This record gives sequence, C-alpha cells and structure tokens, in this order.
Amino acid sequence: MASVFDSPNKLLFGMGSSKTIGEKLKELGVTKVLFIYDQGIKSAGIVDIITEYVTASGIEIVTYDKVEPNPPDYSVNEAAELGLRENVNGILAVGGGSSLDTGKGVRILLSYKGPISNYYAKLDSAPLDEKIMKPLIVLPTTAGTGSEATPGGVITDSLTHIKRPIICGVSLGIIDPALHVNLPSAITAATGFDTLCHAVEAVTSKHSNRISDVLGLEAITLVGKHLRTAVKDGSNLEAREGMALAATLAGMSLRGPFGGIPHDLGSPLSSVYSIPHGNAVAFLLAEALSYIAPAAPDKVRLVAEALGADIPAEASSEQIGDIARATVNSLYSDANMPTMKSFIPNKEEMLANIDKFYKPSVFSPRPLDLEAATMILSNSYDKSYAKQPERI
Amino acid sequence: MASVFDSPNKLLFGMGSSKTIGEKLKELGVTKVLFIYDQGIKSAGIVDIITEYVTASGIEIVTYDKVEPNPPDYSVNEAAELGLRENVNGILAVGGGSSLDTGKGVRILLSYKGPISNYYAKLDSAPLDEKIMKPLIVLPTTAGTGSEATPGGVITDSLTHIKRPIICGVSLGIIDPALHVNLPSAITAATGFDTLCHAVEAVTSKHSNRISDVLGLEAITLVGKHLRTAVKDGSNLEAREGMALAATLAGMSLRGPFGGIPHDLGSPLSSVYSIPHGNAVAFLLAEALSYIAPAAPDKVRLVAEALGADIPAEASSEQIGDIARATVNSLYSDANMPTMKSFIPNKEEMLANIDKFYKPSVFSPRPLDLEAATMILSNSYDKSYAKQPERI
Repeated sequence: MASVFDSPNKLLFGMGSSKTIGEKLKELGVTKVLFIYDQGIKSAGIVDIITEYVTASGIEIVTYDKVEPNPPDYSVNEAAELGLRENVNGILAVGGGSSLDTGKGVRILLSYKGPISNYYAKLDSAPLDEKIMKPLIVLPTTAGTGSEATPGGVITDSLTHIKRPIICGVSLGIIDPALHVNLPSAITAATGFDTLCHAVEAVTSKHSNRISDVLGLEAITLVGKHLRTAVKDGSNLEAREGMALAATLAGMSLRGPFGGIPHDLGSPLSSVYSIPHGNAVAFLLAEALSYIAPAAPDKVRLVAEALGADIPAEASSEQIGDIARATVNSLYSDANMPTMKSFIPNKEEMLANIDKFYKPSVFSPRPLDLEAATMILSNSYDKSYAKQPERI
Repeated sequence: MASVFDSPNKLLFGMGSSKTIGEKLKELGVTKVLFIYDQGIKSAGIVDIITEYVTASGIEIVTYDKVEPNPPDYSVNEAAELGLRENVNGILAVGGGSSLDTGKGVRILLSYKGPISNYYAKLDSAPLDEKIMKPLIVLPTTAGTGSEATPGGVITDSLTHIKRPIICGVSLGIIDPALHVNLPSAITAATGFDTLCHAVEAVTSKHSNRISDVLGLEAITLVGKHLRTAVKDGSNLEAREGMALAATLAGMSLRGPFGGIPHDLGSPLSSVYSIPHGNAVAFLLAEALSYIAPAAPDKVRLVAEALGADIPAEASSEQIGDIARATVNSLYSDANMPTMKSFIPNKEEMLANIDKFYKPSVFSPRPLDLEAATMILSNSYDKSYAKQPERI
C-alpha cells in the first residue's frame, strides 16, 4: 500500500541563503534567539559567520554550545532550561543532525513542560500543536541526515541508551551549500552515504509512494553524480550543491515510506559500537540491496540505474541485485569509505551480539529474519575493496 | 532570489486510493461529512462510487451538489451555511479545481465567521489557524489544477467578477487516477495543458527554487510522455497515472515560484471571454516560452528537453526559444487543442480590450509590458496548426 506523502517543513535552498537568516528570524518575530550548536561548528568558523548575520538584524543571541553526538535527553533538557530562563522567543540550530534534533527537542520544551522524555513519540501519539510553539530555524552544515526536511528527531535516552523518536517540525530549514566547503572529506563521504541510504530505503520501501519516489530517485542520481567529487575536492561548489540538494530531497522522501535494512540494522549497530551514524548504515547498503532484489527487482534496478549502472533489460532479479551491489561497492571504494573491520575488530563477537541490534525491518520489501540479518552483516564485514583504506 | 519551498498538504497517490476515503475520514474523526461536488461528477458516476466508500465506513453524508465553475463567493457561503446548519464535522470535496476550491472556502467558514469575502488573502495576511478547523479531504477528478497539492484556492467575487485568492490547506489529498478514465478527451487535453503551464511557470520563474525544479521538471517530463496517449485513449491507465502524478507534482512546484505569463494573462482572459481555464492558459504557453528564452535560456532549454526536444549545445537563446515554441505547438496539435479563434471570434476586439486582462507578470524572468503582452496574444491568436480543429 502506498504511503501518505507528508513534507511539512518550509525550505530555503541555495548558495548564500544563510545570509538571510537574520531577516528570516525577524520575519518570524524573533528578537532573542537561543543559538544551538556544537564545538565542531565553532572551530570550523561557521558560528562566527552566522552570529554576524543574526546580530546584523538586531537580534539578541543566547548560546547553547554543548550539543553532543546522538543527542542525549539531558542535553535537550539543559538547553531548554537555558532558553526558558533567558526568555528567548525563538531557536536557531546549526550543525549536523545532532544539533538540529536538539533544536527540535528544545522547541517542544519551550512550550510543553519537560523533561523531553515525556514526548518520545509512539505510533498513536497525537501531534503536538506547533501553532503555540516558538519559531525554530535550522541550518544543516552537513549533507546527510535531512533532518531539516522532516518533522522527526532522534534523542538518546540516557537511562536505557535507546534512541527514541520525537516529532516536531521546523519553521524554516535554510540549506546553504557554501557552508559545506570545509567539511572534512571523511565526514562528507559518511554523511553522503547516509543520504544515499535514506533515498534508497524510501524508494525500495514496501510502503513507498510515487511522490517520494520522484524525490528519492533524484537524490540518488545526485549522489551518483556528485559524491566522488565532493569527497575529493571539497571546495567544488557544484558538487557541494548537488550533495546538499540530495540530502534535503532524501529527507523529504523518507517520511511515509520510512527506513529499510541499512538504518534498521545500522542505527542500533552505531549505538552499540559508537560508530558514526553514516558509516554504520553505509556498511550495509550494498548487501541489503542485493538481499531485497528478489522481492523488489524493479525498484533495485531503478536505484542502480540512478547511480549510473547499465543493466540489461533481460537481467534476472539476482543479476540486478549483483549489479546494484557492485555499483554501491564501487562508489563506497571511490569515496574512500573505511572498512567495517576498522570500527569493529572482531566479526565473530559482533555476530554473537546480534541480539543487541537486530530487529525485523518493518518496511523492507523482503522480510528480515535473524538469519538474513546475520548473513548481511557477515557479508558486509567480509567484503574487500581493491583500494579500501583502514579507518582514517 | 530563490523562493521558499512550501508543500504542506498530505497526499495519498495511487490507483485505487479512493477506496480508502471512508477509512481516512474516520481516522480524522469525521462522523458526518459535507460532500461537495458538481453535476458533472454526478453524471460521470463518480459520486455514487465515493458515496459507497464513505457510507461503508458508517459516515453520514450531507450533500452540496451546486458547485459552479470559477466558484463564486455566494456558492461557498451557501455550502458553508448548509454545513453549519447540519452540524457536520468534516468536508469532502470531489471534482475539478472548482469543487476543491469551494471545499477550501467552506473549510474556513465552518470555523471562521463568514462571508468568504472576509478571507480574501493579501500579501500580508496572517495565515488562519488550521488546527481549529474541521478536516477536509479533497479528491481531484481531473489531472489539472493541482489544487490538492497547495493551500491556495481561487474564489470569484460576484460583485466585481474578479478572482480572489484564499489560503487554506487540506487535511489530505487523495489522487486516484482510476477515477480519471471517463474524463472526456477535450477536458483531458485542456487540464493537461494547465498542468504543463503550472510546471513550466514554476521552473522558469525568476523566484524558482531547486526543490520545486525537481518536481516541475518531472511533471513536464510526464506530460511530454503521457498527454498524447491520455487524450487519444482515456482508458490507458499508465497514461492516466502519469498525468495525475504530473498534475500533483506541478501543483507542489508552484507555491514559492508562483505563476508566469500564461496564467498572468490567460487567467483574466478566461474570465473576460468565459473560456475554460486550461484552454486560456494553454493558448499562450508556446509564445510565452519563446518570449522569455532570451532572459532564461537555460531554463527554457530544460523545459523543452523535458518535453523531448533535442537542442544542440551551441544553440542561441533565440534558437532555444524557437525549438521550445515548436515543441509545445506540436504537443498542442497532437492533443487536439482547439484554436484561440474558436473561443474569441475577433482578434482586433480582443487586443483593443487588453486593458481588461493585462497585468505585469511579477514572476516572469523577462518583464512583460503592454507591448509584449499584445505581441504574445497576437502571435498566439495567429498561429495555425497543420491539423488543428475548431472548438469541439
């Protein structure tokens, strides 16, 4: 059954669009903003640039600079307490998915009584009323999570160490690829693969829809066209723009179809072994595509062709899966993505621990039992690339 | 400057998706629905089909079956009074753009005090609060306006005969191409050209944006691929599905970039001469593309190529405009679209009346003065097609 397409966030995309950030906050009535970011963004010089744009519009800034990766509940609670104490009337979150998701959590808590653990979403949760919330502008500095394009966020519960979803839209996402030029090559590659997984999982979901497909396939095409260049030459603006657009389109494509095997297995794997999210999902993409090919050959064909593969019309579903796997492996290798072994030293121990990160993949077109998950993990671990580096 | 992408409506697209309509109304808490449609939809048998789907879910129906083309204010007021009197808690609008826009007007008036003329939108209007509104599901029966995909509607003020915008989203748009198979060929063609104009105007707008471009170019590609077949063989489901998807994507692409010359001139022309909307905008598309080509050659090239044209890399902007015009004229001819002359008997009188429908085209990449508008109208009127029919 087709899913409902739902893309509520307003989005301003373009080279130099971050220059409008003060003006956009002002249009939303913000006079005192809680500016949320992490130390990496500060070191990269992006905080100084954005601060100038914001203060030039006469907006007062309160800073929360302690965003953590896989943002934990206590950090969201702490940032929200600061915002409430300082009586801000808007939020600006700048950075990767962690900063953006922290911003979404804080947006909830500026209007609804904390802690954030009160608002972990369940399937039957009624949506919170965003009309009563303070404005939130988000500005991604990686081309990866697509968090700017969705009303979803992921918060790590510090008691259970489990990632929990929250639902909160943003007033405006501003995507400025010019801010991505200094992103290190390894992060460009890993976040680019996160984008690719989003789009592939949306398009191949058993609850895909035709509107998401348009966005997802365009995202895959853009990744195929621009990821290699973005990794090799970070100052190439066309490649940065292509990857930034891909990340946003992939985020838009995902709500409704939701995720597939790479995220279903890779996301908990990243928690267990403290692997960056993009790397963990990227490990599994090639083998996952080959695994689902018999159940969704036409979709896997579209994915591989969007990445540039040439597939004979008469190819069997198995052949389509093989070509898709080879196509993804070749991109993985060209993007200098590190081996799984460089993050997880012992394969047997990982497989023995599979209960910690296995769950059935609800939206996968082919059911994922424990045996299949083991096979995908094992094959992903074993694969060797001609020129694959160890962890950088 | 790039515009903000904004596509708030939830959308369920797919063959047979109308079967879920009762279930979707129920999910939204509707127990008594105001069912809004016109006599054409009734005659086509669609009302009976939808009634069955709705009543099967135990939902009570109150009928408003007096939707008029270019929906006038008094009809919206009348339908809303019926809904209030009968105490409905939801709205279902089925039909072309007129029914859908009537539904949006009624949605406002079930929660905000009428008449609808209180809610004509201005540039600085604060948006109405949809959280307090009753649910509205819309189901388009043409592949044309894309009203299901936007929060905009157009109501004709009966005092001034001027079309005025209203802003009201929908809770869910359900697009079921299977309901389009009995649409007469001439309406398929005219509404298909309306879709094409939306997408072309979005992509070539001087305030286009990269996200809208993805949707708009896909819509243009789909029209180029499917319109001829949908016109010639209305029961071809693949062509119907392609055109329905094109209409929705084109609607999504339009908010932000907004319209260009075909709608800016054609929409008032349709009022003055009582010409179906799709025909009036379609008259002008080919000449408008050739006119804007010197200002936006790359965009006009993309449009023509999406329609299947082959343009040499070294083509001048004038040559690109010529090829784009010829490409649209060929599609116009193949779709058996009627001549302008068959709606407007006297060309000189039309040009003498130009003050009644000329306005500068705010979003056109090339400014449209009175002289240019006269030229576009005149050339559009004169063009002759090898096999072009008179009005059917």
